[in-house]
Amino acid sequence: MAKLYFRHGVMAAAKTSNLLQVEFTYRQAGMKTILAKPAVDSKGGPAIVSRIGLSKDAELLIDAEMNVKEVMQKLIEENREAGTPLACLLIDEAQFLSPKQVDQLLWLTVFEDLPVLAYGLRSDFLTQAFPGSARLLTVAHSIEEVKTVCPHDGRKALFNARKDKNGNFISDGDQVAIDGEGVTYESICPKCFMEKVAPLA
Amino acid sequence: MAKLYFRHGVMAAAKTSNLLQVEFTYRQAGMKTILAKPAVDSKGGPAIVSRIGLSKDAELLIDAEMNVKEVMQKLIEENREAGTPLACLLIDEAQFLSPKQVDQLLWLTVFEDLPVLAYGLRSDFLTQAFPGSARLLTVAHSIEEVKTVCPHDGRKALFNARKDKNGNFISDGDQVAIDGEGVTYESICPKCFMEKVAPLA
Amino acid sequence: MAKLYFRHGVMAAAKTSNLLQVEFTYRQAGMKTILAKPAVDSKGGPAIVSRIGLSKDAELLIDAEMNVKEVMQKLIEENREAGTPLACLLIDEAQFLSPKQVDQLLWLTVFEDLPVLAYGLRSDFLTQAFPGSARLLTVAHSIEEVKTVCPHDGRKALFNARKDKNGNFISDGDQVAIDGEGVTYESICPKCFMEKVAPLA
Amino acid sequence: MAKLYFRHGVMAAAKTSNLLQVEFTYRQAGMKTILAKPAVDSKGGPAIVSRIGLSKDAELLIDAEMNVKEVMQKLIEENREAGTPLACLLIDEAQFLSPKQVDQLLWLTVFEDLPVLAYGLRSDFLTQAFPGSARLLTVAHSIEEVKTVCPHDGRKALFNARKDKNGNFISDGDQVAIDGEGVTYESICPKCFMEKVAPLA
Repeated sequence: MAKLYFRHGVMAAAKTSNLLQVEFTYRQAGMKTILAKPAVDSKGGPAIVSRIGLSKDAELLIDAEMNVKEVMQKLIEENREAGTPLACLLIDEAQFLSPKQVDQLLWLTVFEDLPVLAYGLRSDFLTQAFPGSARLLTVAHSIEEVKTVCPHDGRKALFNARKDKNGNFISDGDQVAIDGEGVTYESICPKCFMEKVAPLA
Repeated sequence: MAKLYFRHGVMAAAKTSNLLQVEFTYRQAGMKTILAKPAVDSKGGPAIVSRIGLSKDAELLIDAEMNVKEVMQKLIEENREAGTPLACLLIDEAQFLSPKQVDQLLWLTVFEDLPVLAYGLRSDFLTQAFPGSARLLTVAHSIEEVKTVCPHDGRKALFNARKDKNGNFISDGDQVAIDGEGVTYESICPKCFMEKVAPLA
Repeated sequence: MAKLYFRHGVMAAAKTSNLLQVEFTYRQAGMKTILAKPAVDSKGGPAIVSRIGLSKDAELLIDAEMNVKEVMQKLIEENREAGTPLACLLIDEAQFLSPKQVDQLLWLTVFEDLPVLAYGLRSDFLTQAFPGSARLLTVAHSIEEVKTVCPHDGRKALFNARKDKNGNFISDGDQVAIDGEGVTYESICPKCFMEKVAPLA
Repeated sequence: MAKLYFRHGVMAAAKTSNLLQVEFTYRQAGMKTILAKPAVDSKGGPAIVSRIGLSKDAELLIDAEMNVKEVMQKLIEENREAGTPLACLLIDEAQFLSPKQVDQLLWLTVFEDLPVLAYGLRSDFLTQAFPGSARLLTVAHSIEEVKTVCPHDGRKALFNARKDKNGNFISDGDQVAIDGEGVTYESICPKCFMEKVAPLA
């Protein structure tokens, strides 16, 4: 039976590169996938771009109100008729999905037998879960980590700290602020986060 | 460096048995652990009891307002002085911790180098995360699953469905209702949950 | 599709306890399993005994020449006819299987759709793989670890060091020597092994 | 403490892409790594090339007789003195290492605290472990899988089937035969392997 996978990791851990590689691998094997991302992610329109230089356009932009279940059912049907049955659905920046959409993904794995690989962050710059991430962490069949290390001490990075234009860590602002647009991010370990950004406990 | 582990699993997946086995293994190796559980878990006072018959008293009952960081710092200090340095903290029913207490556990791993193994459910009888689980899923260094299968079809069980006295699935009531006290639970796969309890999507 | 799982761990890591717990969980869910172990494992005849005190008799003793594929096909058929279809095959001390028998297990997962959970050691007292372990590590669908720590420094234990009657580490003798019969074992980390038993490199 | 990771996967599962991405991520974080591969791998001299188009030269070619422990100790020392302490050692095609070299890698993790990420195949075209893989599977701290699917049925691919120039599966020849040089490979699931190449059991 198909499964819903949540592959989480901090920023710059190579999630998008991993996703594009999976799409490529399926394609090389002659299998059709759908590449998707939430429309709210404004980095370059439909393009899904990894830091290392891989890039491909999303075939499906998921806006906040989209019924992903219905949209995918149509795509599944169309592709089946076209003789290119869907092998899986790949979603970048899945933290921006709504909890309802995550449940629709779970439904698709169960009743359409469609594997869904959702890549995304667990938490925002203040260590709070994004709504989509929270739901994915709660209902995904499988939770896997795309790991990277803290640049300060080599420990596993867990949090996405935000910096202002001067490179200072900041702990206020909206939950969503795009990397490079006035702010930047640094993926760091809990020790560095608690010492440099906010104590948490 | 020590880590915060969240070992989640549905009811009756053998989480408590696993936890007691870890405690036993440490003990056999001559290492001291602290066995804890939230005080809200009323099954038999301090006793931590597994379905297969293993049992041991918790040495620490964590009530809702306890500052786990401070309490554990004292225990770490006392045990160090007594020549029995703590090897790890083991927590059953960790879904009942407060998010704040989860952050305190993370702090203990980072600044006291104390490994913490927290066992618990991801979600309640309506597939919603418990507050403690939600925080553990968001900040734990490592998320591991204690797996079991759905009795109806052998698929992986993900959800904890609630039944009334007559064995019918029910979808109303408080988030916390103890197994055996008027209600029972059945750990089932998402397909069975969506078909028998609530459609979700 | 069913899978062949190799759940490896050092001695006293709680593999048998974990196995018996899985059998119990299936039984509680009303599902039938087969509990097996290689006949060469002489600890107490058919009994599968865990250090913490759990125990159950193996229903199938696998001797060195047994065709596990044929034997299991009969059991699958018998149980299907009896209305108790097999939910899985559980094997303790799987390091003692022959490579051929491991391939038969893989065959059973693929063509009989029978999940197989094989628990065992990776390596002997000199860090060499057992023949059965080597094959399981090479062909299992999924390799999972039952972890424990080194009693000397709390690091992850990887090796099964052998001690003589006086408690001194020894590095000669047969690959198989039963714990408690003239020798004992200590599960230790690679650092301790290289320092106390054999340098390896 | 540093660990020896064996990240295994079938051919074309994106192991090299994954490895180059890890190297890139470390580099972006300002950390120095060593990129290595066995000299026996003749695909393009020192270049480490992934199917998706990523590429970078190995800084260290490991020939069959090299004492990796001594060579790396020098590199660790040199880089420490140069103010660029090594963050980790990354090895592609690790199945071609000798068992002795794998033990040297383990030594480096333990006594030099150097993380080692070794990427490679588990088995050859006849499902037999390579000597380096066999040792990695036996002693690695952590075994992780880079997964991909069988092009015939979407199941998890486990084996590397060899084809002749006409695209027919073959089951004879040397253990090592480079992809594209008279033969090609197809990564397939155990069911397809047993049905199309060799029954195994």
